[in-house]
Amino acid sequence: MQIPREKWSHNFGEWFDKVIFEAEIYDYGRYPVKGMGVWMPYGFKIREKALSLIRNLLNGTGHEEVLFPMLIPEDLLQKETEHIEGFENEVFWVTKGGLQQLDVKLALRPTSEVAITYMESLWIKSYRQLPKKYYQIVSIFRYETKSTRPLIRVREVSTFKEAHTIHETYEDADNQVKEAISIYKKFFDELGIPYIISERPSWDRFAGALHTYAFDTIMPDGRVLQIGTVHHLGQHFTKAFDYKIQKADGNLDYPHQTSYGISDRVIAVLVSINGDDHGPILTPLVAPIQVVVIPIPAKNENDTTKIMSYAKEITQILNENNISVYLDEEKDKTPGEKFYYWELKGVPLRIELGMRETNGGSVTIKRRDDLTSKVVIKEKMVDEVKGLLNEVRRSVRDRAWIFFNQKVKFSTDPDSAKKSLEEGGIVEVPWCGEDSCGLKVEEITGGKVLGYPIESKEINESCIVCKKPAKTTLRIAKTY
Amino acid sequence: MQIPREKWSHNFGEWFDKVIFEAEIYDYGRYPVKGMGVWMPYGFKIREKALSLIRNLLNGTGHEEVLFPMLIPEDLLQKETEHIEGFENEVFWVTKGGLQQLDVKLALRPTSEVAITYMESLWIKSYRQLPKKYYQIVSIFRYETKSTRPLIRVREVSTFKEAHTIHETYEDADNQVKEAISIYKKFFDELGIPYIISERPSWDRFAGALHTYAFDTIMPDGRVLQIGTVHHLGQHFTKAFDYKIQKADGNLDYPHQTSYGISDRVIAVLVSINGDDHGPILTPLVAPIQVVVIPIPAKNENDTTKIMSYAKEITQILNENNISVYLDEEKDKTPGEKFYYWELKGVPLRIELGMRETNGGSVTIKRRDDLTSKVVIKEKMVDEVKGLLNEVRRSVRDRAWIFFNQKVKFSTDPDSAKKSLEEGGIVEVPWCGEDSCGLKVEEITGGKVLGYPIESKEINESCIVCKKPAKTTLRIAKTY
Repeated sequence: MQIPREKWSHNFGEWFDKVIFEAEIYDYGRYPVKGMGVWMPYGFKIREKALSLIRNLLNGTGHEEVLFPMLIPEDLLQKETEHIEGFENEVFWVTKGGLQQLDVKLALRPTSEVAITYMESLWIKSYRQLPKKYYQIVSIFRYETKSTRPLIRVREVSTFKEAHTIHETYEDADNQVKEAISIYKKFFDELGIPYIISERPSWDRFAGALHTYAFDTIMPDGRVLQIGTVHHLGQHFTKAFDYKIQKADGNLDYPHQTSYGISDRVIAVLVSINGDDHGPILTPLVAPIQVVVIPIPAKNENDTTKIMSYAKEITQILNENNISVYLDEEKDKTPGEKFYYWELKGVPLRIELGMRETNGGSVTIKRRDDLTSKVVIKEKMVDEVKGLLNEVRRSVRDRAWIFFNQKVKFSTDPDSAKKSLEEGGIVEVPWCGEDSCGLKVEEITGGKVLGYPIESKEINESCIVCKKPAKTTLRIAKTY
Repeated sequence: MQIPREKWSHNFGEWFDKVIFEAEIYDYGRYPVKGMGVWMPYGFKIREKALSLIRNLLNGTGHEEVLFPMLIPEDLLQKETEHIEGFENEVFWVTKGGLQQLDVKLALRPTSEVAITYMESLWIKSYRQLPKKYYQIVSIFRYETKSTRPLIRVREVSTFKEAHTIHETYEDADNQVKEAISIYKKFFDELGIPYIISERPSWDRFAGALHTYAFDTIMPDGRVLQIGTVHHLGQHFTKAFDYKIQKADGNLDYPHQTSYGISDRVIAVLVSINGDDHGPILTPLVAPIQVVVIPIPAKNENDTTKIMSYAKEITQILNENNISVYLDEEKDKTPGEKFYYWELKGVPLRIELGMRETNGGSVTIKRRDDLTSKVVIKEKMVDEVKGLLNEVRRSVRDRAWIFFNQKVKFSTDPDSAKKSLEEGGIVEVPWCGEDSCGLKVEEITGGKVLGYPIESKEINESCIVCKKPAKTTLRIAKTY
């Protein structure tokens, strides 16, 4: 069957805003503060499922969850100059408490490096206590001046998972960076979200980081979205706080840190990456409802009663088998209206039950991803549903990766790079490794530099700018 | 065995601050914003367990979790006059974004009635959609001018579970109040926290409520702490927003609302209510570690190795039986130091393993609550541990209720009421039901009125103030 994907792929912006709103995920643009939205119950459940996955991955690797205050005093934020300079134009400031002017302005946290480093300096005095890995899931605030976009560019990022780790040596922190990358890989792999990992160029690092590594994905419209970052902070913050620990060799020295984060954007991608003109297709892993049961009323009341009671039986069987199922009993809607509604919600499977199924002791199962149906007898239903949920999960992941891989291209000259950029996706170009050439790439192609591969591959090409032998590739894209 | 409870009962303030800090629950007073503290990993886990209990209770009764923005614009907050008047002296205001002055001041939410009512007016248009029950778990902010206290009186309440419901009729909302009270009863009963439920007097209602019902408990020092409130909001907020819905009878009318909340204070009580001079005694339901295994090294290395390997075996058995267990292998601490540490953490059971246990295939189990020990053979350990965890849970709950009940007294004259107040706890006095007499009770006794029982009981006494026949009792106390 042909899947209708016109709006999804050619009018993605409109599709996205509509789906986020109509599927009751996130109410945006109506709350009376610009750039801030409301997580509605259905969206909240998707969010919880994604968060529970990342929590398990972090807890399983020795990370400890904490919760810091939302406010950071100005003088604390100013401790690390480079850091505050990176943020000062986009910080919300609390200046009044009740009717009083505050002595020290308080920032709504834009991120928590300084707050965490400050408390670490009180908590951790010796290498014996290291490594320590903390994380928290909180709101962060940025006074964005660019145009905002639900879940993608907002002023309150209300799902910010930030991890902060501290280590005795540079190498320990470097290994932590590797662990963080491997955790995020697992996270995105489980969710079926394709990504490419780049080290960001020097001019695009996180304020205060020695190295920034980023996970980028490609949205249906071909624009690239950053969905996770990992920073090696070195001793930047510990030096700014003059915070030393006792090392194994007896000396005192500044410990090394890393930090890494993911945000609301994960949900934006989960909703977008697999979709069609009917709405999103949720991977069963995060779908609040995996199977919706829709009874199709018969012409006479007696038969309808039989169908309803059969639908209840079917629902109960699925429920007892730990499948999250919902029976749509509403009387004021036609089956067609219900199909429309639950497709818009992205529910992976729907079971249709009419007189034929009721009499035959069967169920008709329809897949959300490819819109195909099959009829199975009741006794085989649970196995079939479980199998289909796995298949949908695999199939949406594969489809997303195919889409992604098609959109990563290689260009050796500016004109073809420019052309590829226009088509959307990521373009890799050969690069000599010099910052000056990297910046020029942005100029001559009009794309934004994402960065370069972590492991440099040998390539027999010349730098797209200076024509000297290329050392690696540089990835460019039109970004969100 | 005599349990040392001198400091706990006679120097509670100091005991509490020390325990909160040293047991690594909540770091308070060191974070550089007054009245704001940091949830440390151990405290965070206790908090999570309590929250998971309330989430289950709410989800099981049709409540849906949502997440609203942290900021409320001034004009929205002003919609309900009585409400803003109740809060305006204690609101933190954001006035700057980046380097710009904001056009409209934004409040850090002190509570969310106005924000929720506003969104409800967009979401819910008909009685068919009712009832709706939302809740969120968020930070709220109050610029407290009273002296602050960790988890008890803070400027950022970082665990605020607020529920908001909306109904077609006054009676529906009234029934929701009853459901809320029954949910909170279950919650506190499970946690083993004693409480008394009073309707707050007219002069102490939540700003904008028709009725406020409160759960109060008694802390070890005899002072009373409010730990939960339930409000019947009537049409106060919906009228302020001129928000009407279609009713079943076809007319348009303002819907009715309730709201109810619990906070960080629940954790403060969980940590305090059962304790001794060694620290808190956590109920096994919220204890991040239920059993700690402490190997007692032998004099020679060979035996110590045997003990360590036995300790690992014991830990594994408990772990496989879903008991949350921790093996303290640290080499730099003596067993005595470990006992001290884990008692301070409130771990309900500890297993000591020395040469005697290792050779005998037994374990010595010590209860944190009554400090008694018993030796059991390995084969019976799992059953014994499970039984003891249940017993500890029952025993700390019973003990807390006995303490609580002893501290609720009845007085018919001001002098004895005053004397009882000095001894701590709650004093019930006969009352005619008139506000003027209620206010006078505060004057003549120096206590604060908590309120009166929900179900008025008949009492054959005269009002403690006017001497007219009493209609009910008024409860007074020294409060936090």
